Amino acid sequence: MKRILILNGPNINLTGIREPEIYGTKTYAELMEDIRDFGKSRGCSLTFLQSNSEGSLIDAIQMAWKENMDGIVFNPGGYAHTSVALRDAISSVPLPTVEVHMTNIDNRESFRRTSLTAGACLGTIAGFGFRSYLLAIEALLGQSSQTNAGL
Amino acid sequence: MKRILILNGPNINLTGIREPEIYGTKTYAELMEDIRDFGKSRGCSLTFLQSNSEGSLIDAIQMAWKENMDGIVFNPGGYAHTSVALRDAISSVPLPTVEVHMTNIDNRESFRRTSLTAGACLGTIAGFGFRSYLLAIEALLGQSSQTNAGL
Amino acid sequence: MKRILILNGPNINLTGIREPEIYGTKTYAELMEDIRDFGKSRGCSLTFLQSNSEGSLIDAIQMAWKENMDGIVFNPGGYAHTSVALRDAISSVPLPTVEVHMTNIDNRESFRRTSLTAGACLGTIAGFGFRSYLLAIEALLGQSSQTNAGL
Amino acid sequence: MKRILILNGPNINLTGIREPEIYGTKTYAELMEDIRDFGKSRGCSLTFLQSNSEGSLIDAIQMAWKENMDGIVFNPGGYAHTSVALRDAISSVPLPTVEVHMTNIDNRESFRRTSLTAGACLGTIAGFGFRSYLLAIEALLGQSSQTNAGL
Amino acid sequence: MKRILILNGPNINLTGIREPEIYGTKTYAELMEDIRDFGKSRGCSLTFLQSNSEGSLIDAIQMAWKENMDGIVFNPGGYAHTSVALRDAISSVPLPTVEVHMTNIDNRESFRRTSLTAGACLGTIAGFGFRSYLLAIEALLGQSSQTNAGL
Amino acid sequence: MKRILILNGPNINLTGIREPEIYGTKTYAELMEDIRDFGKSRGCSLTFLQSNSEGSLIDAIQMAWKENMDGIVFNPGGYAHTSVALRDAISSVPLPTVEVHMTNIDNRESFRRTSLTAGACLGTIAGFGFRSYLLAIEALLGQSSQTNAGL
Amino acid sequence: MKRILILNGPNINLTGIREPEIYGTKTYAELMEDIRDFGKSRGCSLTFLQSNSEGSLIDAIQMAWKENMDGIVFNPGGYAHTSVALRDAISSVPLPTVEVHMTNIDNRESFRRTSLTAGACLGTIAGFGFRSYLLAIEALLGQSSQTNAGL
Amino acid sequence: MKRILILNGPNINLTGIREPEIYGTKTYAELMEDIRDFGKSRGCSLTFLQSNSEGSLIDAIQMAWKENMDGIVFNPGGYAHTSVALRDAISSVPLPTVEVHMTNIDNRESFRRTSLTAGACLGTIAGFGFRSYLLAIEALLGQSSQTNAGL
Amino acid sequence: MKRILILNGPNINLTGIREPEIYGTKTYAELMEDIRDFGKSRGCSLTFLQSNSEGSLIDAIQMAWKENMDGIVFNPGGYAHTSVALRDAISSVPLPTVEVHMTNIDNRESFRRTSLTAGACLGTIAGFGFRSYLLAIEALLGQSSQTNAGL
Amino acid sequence: MKRILILNGPNINLTGIREPEIYGTKTYAELMEDIRDFGKSRGCSLTFLQSNSEGSLIDAIQMAWKENMDGIVFNPGGYAHTSVALRDAISSVPLPTVEVHMTNIDNRESFRRTSLTAGACLGTIAGFGFRSYLLAIEALLGQSSQTNAGL
Amino acid sequence: MKRILILNGPNINLTGIREPEIYGTKTYAELMEDIRDFGKSRGCSLTFLQSNSEGSLIDAIQMAWKENMDGIVFNPGGYAHTSVALRDAISSVPLPTVEVHMTNIDNRESFRRTSLTAGACLGTIAGFGFRSYLLAIEALLGQSSQTNAGL
Amino acid sequence: MKRILILNGPNINLTGIREPEIYGTKTYAELMEDIRDFGKSRGCSLTFLQSNSEGSLIDAIQMAWKENMDGIVFNPGGYAHTSVALRDAISSVPLPTVEVHMTNIDNRESFRRTSLTAGACLGTIAGFGFRSYLLAIEALLGQSSQTNAGL
Repeated sequence: MKRILILNGPNINLTGIREPEIYGTKTYAELMEDIRDFGKSRGCSLTFLQSNSEGSLIDAIQMAWKENMDGIVFNPGGYAHTSVALRDAISSVPLPTVEVHMTNIDNRESFRRTSLTAGACLGTIAGFGFRSYLLAIEALLGQSSQTNAGL
Repeated sequence: MKRILILNGPNINLTGIREPEIYGTKTYAELMEDIRDFGKSRGCSLTFLQSNSEGSLIDAIQMAWKENMDGIVFNPGGYAHTSVALRDAISSVPLPTVEVHMTNIDNRESFRRTSLTAGACLGTIAGFGFRSYLLAIEALLGQSSQTNAGL
Repeated sequence: MKRILILNGPNINLTGIREPEIYGTKTYAELMEDIRDFGKSRGCSLTFLQSNSEGSLIDAIQMAWKENMDGIVFNPGGYAHTSVALRDAISSVPLPTVEVHMTNIDNRESFRRTSLTAGACLGTIAGFGFRSYLLAIEALLGQSSQTNAGL
Repeated sequence: MKRILILNGPNINLTGIREPEIYGTKTYAELMEDIRDFGKSRGCSLTFLQSNSEGSLIDAIQMAWKENMDGIVFNPGGYAHTSVALRDAISSVPLPTVEVHMTNIDNRESFRRTSLTAGACLGTIAGFGFRSYLLAIEALLGQSSQTNAGL
Repeated sequence: MKRILILNGPNINLTGIREPEIYGTKTYAELMEDIRDFGKSRGCSLTFLQSNSEGSLIDAIQMAWKENMDGIVFNPGGYAHTSVALRDAISSVPLPTVEVHMTNIDNRESFRRTSLTAGACLGTIAGFGFRSYLLAIEALLGQSSQTNAGL
Repeated sequence: MKRILILNGPNINLTGIREPEIYGTKTYAELMEDIRDFGKSRGCSLTFLQSNSEGSLIDAIQMAWKENMDGIVFNPGGYAHTSVALRDAISSVPLPTVEVHMTNIDNRESFRRTSLTAGACLGTIAGFGFRSYLLAIEALLGQSSQTNAGL
Repeated sequence: MKRILILNGPNINLTGIREPEIYGTKTYAELMEDIRDFGKSRGCSLTFLQSNSEGSLIDAIQMAWKENMDGIVFNPGGYAHTSVALRDAISSVPLPTVEVHMTNIDNRESFRRTSLTAGACLGTIAGFGFRSYLLAIEALLGQSSQTNAGL
Repeated sequence: MKRILILNGPNINLTGIREPEIYGTKTYAELMEDIRDFGKSRGCSLTFLQSNSEGSLIDAIQMAWKENMDGIVFNPGGYAHTSVALRDAISSVPLPTVEVHMTNIDNRESFRRTSLTAGACLGTIAGFGFRSYLLAIEALLGQSSQTNAGL
Repeated sequence: MKRILILNGPNINLTGIREPEIYGTKTYAELMEDIRDFGKSRGCSLTFLQSNSEGSLIDAIQMAWKENMDGIVFNPGGYAHTSVALRDAISSVPLPTVEVHMTNIDNRESFRRTSLTAGACLGTIAGFGFRSYLLAIEALLGQSSQTNAGL
Repeated sequence: MKRILILNGPNINLTGIREPEIYGTKTYAELMEDIRDFGKSRGCSLTFLQSNSEGSLIDAIQMAWKENMDGIVFNPGGYAHTSVALRDAISSVPLPTVEVHMTNIDNRESFRRTSLTAGACLGTIAGFGFRSYLLAIEALLGQSSQTNAGL
Repeated sequence: MKRILILNGPNINLTGIREPEIYGTKTYAELMEDIRDFGKSRGCSLTFLQSNSEGSLIDAIQMAWKENMDGIVFNPGGYAHTSVALRDAISSVPLPTVEVHMTNIDNRESFRRTSLTAGACLGTIAGFGFRSYLLAIEALLGQSSQTNAGL
Repeated sequence: MKRILILNGPNINLTGIREPEIYGTKTYAELMEDIRDFGKSRGCSLTFLQSNSEGSLIDAIQMAWKENMDGIVFNPGGYAHTSVALRDAISSVPLPTVEVHMTNIDNRESFRRTSLTAGACLGTIAGFGFRSYLLAIEALLGQSSQTNAGL
């Protein structure tokens, strides 16, 4: 049974409350519950972690590796565009990591159009709202031994 | 039954021949066959089109709309980084389009790290090799009425 | 009687269908018909050509010169911002060429605010919708012997 | 009867004197006279104003609106490339404004290839020498109720 | 009793007329009247000056110093982003100057996000609409002997 | 009674100790005490929070909203110039936020001259030393229902 | 006997007609004839192909490889400066390719001074007019097994 | 007897008052008097004009030409770095113009290190304080028939 | 006896485990032990602190100063390239700080080639692997009273 | 008999020693000998000069002209990318100069992808290793009277 | 009697030979002779030195200082735009240095429009051909004790 | 016994004379003497070489390798920021090279903040004044077989 860390960065915990006309009225907790159900149906065990702190997110990536998890689904939020340290964390651990974004970041403000962290990941899935996470789990399950691009 | 156009840009037709240690020894035709099988198993009908010509790719996007298809999975290859005209084509037709790349473009040469066309798509899936196409079909099937970001 | 090529680039053929609240409900074919009528009323013969292909547009510019036409009204669409090859084609033939845009490109996305092709033309007319074409024909008729800026 | 302001920016008053091999030997006054005649023949009343001062040009744009004029043909000269204040003035008054240049600015020094003021205008006509003004009047007469892009 | 110059740059005189849903329906004159009242209530005497001309604004800054005023509240409008000459004027006179903007310029077009003139002022207050002026007067009153940053 | 969060970013807690010739010899604690007194005199209740951690500052912004506070006075210190995540936090909560800086950031090193976070705030007050906070409180008290620019 | 493709990009077919004072009065066909004669004298068989279409040029590069040719002399014209897709085509086929330009592109407009396609070629020869082709054939004949730089 | 216009731009009229430790305690009027004396001693007649207005400086350049003066010594102050319109004025009149700066602008803030206006002048003299004017007069007297670089 | 803080930033704790062919097979703990031994042999007392959190690193710098330490050897890891807040922390405390990197950052990805934090330090030592720390201790011991560059 | 200077810039004298797997095991002296033999076989006399000094290379270019040589084959090495002075030297003497590089500089580090000196040469040949020199001699022999581009 | 070094950089020794229609037919030696005569008439002793080598020019600047000369007139030629080392040399010696250029460098290629060395000089005189040197001597003679800007 | 070249670039020979308040009053010769003593105490033999010429510095690096020295301590002075040729020289010889700067170059003018040569060295030591050399010798002595980064 594969064990996957669902890691969420800053402000993601507000999803489901703000802009309900786009994402529906489910809270962040409910959405994570739905992702957990999807994980179960696909036979894998998910661990959830959200933090607004860059350092805690790095800690979590290191922890996932120390605990022999099988992969990470990572929504770095605003840190995607500025964090060399998170990129280094992803490169440092031999775990396949998939970067997800709920929105299409290529269609937003110019400072959001490039992702420093994505270059160290296995791949990126962006623009499908809540379903971006489900696709990323699917992507990790189909993944056998290949590690991150940044290694 | 959903009808989806699998649209491939320049040089994609050489996949499966070059760099077999990465993508395996299947030819482009065999890979498209695998994608077709996946499509059938998911209850949707796929049309395949590959062209090295920017103009023909624009023609195909317009054609998909005129023939009432339900979505496009588009690997624009090298045109992703240079073509305003393809971006306009995607924006012009009210069909959900998912951009796919087999490699992680955020981890390659600097001129490959931004995609002009992605900004007009529903979303992007990059870095999962051949499986990027399957994830994109999955993404389109979960998609109900939302159209491209660029509309 | 002056003979003028009305040359339209990628996606212009969708005009009149998309965004009817702005351009009205006339199709591209109907609009070209209106332009033809205007041309007749001004005593000149118009040839119409639309292509989504950069190469075909270059072919057309060369053809206009080989067939001894008197000028070109050119809406390069998205190629205006990226095509050195089209700029070279305009510079290579001693025919006055007027670049037209239906929208005011100085008021759009940053990648649309400069035109490589305009630098090789006689002049530019942008922002007057369908009437940009009529003004360009007017401009060419008042033009006697001067050739493109790029020569 | 439509009332239009023909507004000319810095150094335009020297036209007809310098570089006579290009523009002919008519003085600025004579050219304005020709434009006035063209206006009369098209049934509209023209007011002429030239100033080397950025502030006076802003004053004139505000004045045109306070006096209920129907539109402005504006050659901002060198201020086109540097003046946020003139752009704001055009955006602030609900009068259709057409920017004109006698030369093709896309074919000149790099600091002349973008126009800040054009982004706030209805449209731009550049490269047709003295006739740029006549085409701009034609453009305004065909204009019914639409206002500037910048509004 | 402190004497303060309220100096307004280009197009500010149109405030209160355009976009009344944001700023209310008071005219520029009425707003200045309100500012005058606020000044009186705070025991200081205000002089008002508005000009669309960069040169006249420089003249006014020099005049404020020659007439021994105690400070300047300056809304440079569009000149904030382009004028080295105004920056020099502020730096040249030993009067505390506060730059004000009614809108939040960090949230607007890219050419409006930096202010050349602000670097020579004592400080900046932006984004509070009409109240930006009142806060600036408050700021000057609390100011004892410190002069502009640019000195 | 309005409840306002006075939120201070990295290194602000050293104020009053370093560079006493500029800010006086009061410690950070004493200055916050002065701000609290000012708040009381204006009839509002202030909560103080200082952290060197980007994540804790995001937590605090979310907390202010969950506890139904009425506004935030935020000095982001060095994070102003680099943090997309803090900008997102400000945009995510419907609380009016005023960015303050004690120094005039337009007059410092080039990497300090733009603020990413300011674009999501209601407005900015910079350059008035310790008094920047008092003016920001004044600004929030005059603020009725308008929310941040970034919403 | 070595078989080499002489591949010419957009507008090269007009050579010999325009600017005869520089290149002489020979037509493009005559020049290609001279190149063919040179090839014969050097014991190799040349195939000629010119197209204004980016896609057709990519097709031709793939064709040269499928037909087991020994090398390509490629004048990409204006596409040299903009085409990632052509660069990919050159990199994708294990054929030595020499980029040629008749003019010295380092001495022309700034947008012509870098070549995207050259980075994938074996080498570049530029500035020797018609003789650039002959030198490139010479270069290929001296070439044994080394492939393109881009592989 | 040569007639030369000594034209001074914005804020130059404050020279001699501010920063007396550098330029001495002579007022602007006294310095101009010294320049006048130097002119007399060199047998030429000087006209003095200072304005803070860009438009008035353009007017003055045109006036110098209409009045058949023999040359201009021009200190554009802050307009040197931003004014295309002043550059055009210098280029438009066939009078030799020498740009002067009292300070060494290559050793100041980055926005002061390039001069748009200098490119249209005969030459530049910068860094010699008050004596820059005397050297410029010397330069013009040695000048026979050559006109500005920009013509 | 000098007391020095050895401060390590994000992901440095993984050293010795990843890429053992370069740094040997010693763990981070063992390496720090070696550094401690070196410190002892040089007669100084070392305190070790590693954190993945930017805020905790700032806290540590402030703590070192409050506890009257004599200097800091700081490896900021990925934060070197992005953190204005850490630069401010170094500048704020009057302790000599030496930045160290194990690799030669001038020879890596472009986003790693400049260090914001280094500008506030006394000096930098980079490229000597584990020995960079020893050299930095040596540097601090030779350091008497001079403080950081940023003060 | 044509006399040609083979001029080699910095570090070229180490060729044949470093990276023998690419260039073979011949020393620089042996390679120059081979080039001399080729020159003889083509009926021209070659002079060889290598220097690590920019100034000596300029001296050599001037010397070639003073001694009435017929052309220069110049490998500027690292000076190609930085030397305006060498570019001026090439432009100053009416001798055809061909720039050669052994490697394909378009496929190397970004600071090596443009050549300042190439813009002043007749043409460039790059990427053919040792044979680049032979092709350049061939190019000069086919050259009759045309001089450098920079003249 | 003042002793001044007239220091000329690369390729200046070809002046008088190339482009005689601009500078006349006098050789470099004759021009230096004229400058010597001018120096004598102004009561100062001139030493002449020309070198194509950056290092020799630095040597010369140091030598002038060691020999207690009173100033340097320096035409750095192409090194003006690229040499930090020459800038440092000028800054290192407490001798007033005047940079001269015979042409107006603000009106030439973009890479020639800024001068690194000028920022360390007392001032700059450019655009007056041969007379630039005479004006620079004049400037130095009027110079009493002030040293270079860069000190 | 290790043999090390202490190589000093332009203007370093003036150290000890200029700015004695920073570096003390020892002359360059005395400082080198101190370094020699330090070398002896560490059991290695030092060779000293200073030159203002880029070419001579390249010569010296090649010489060190030909004479089988064990390493180079290199202070490239101003050439660090501009010299591709020196970078190539360091890369070309298999000798460990340590770049030293007496000042902290990250804290100086923007054109001094990046070092082209450092990328080819083993490592960099900057900011410790005269002691930077001693630390670099220490670094080389601890160095066994690793060569430069650029190899």
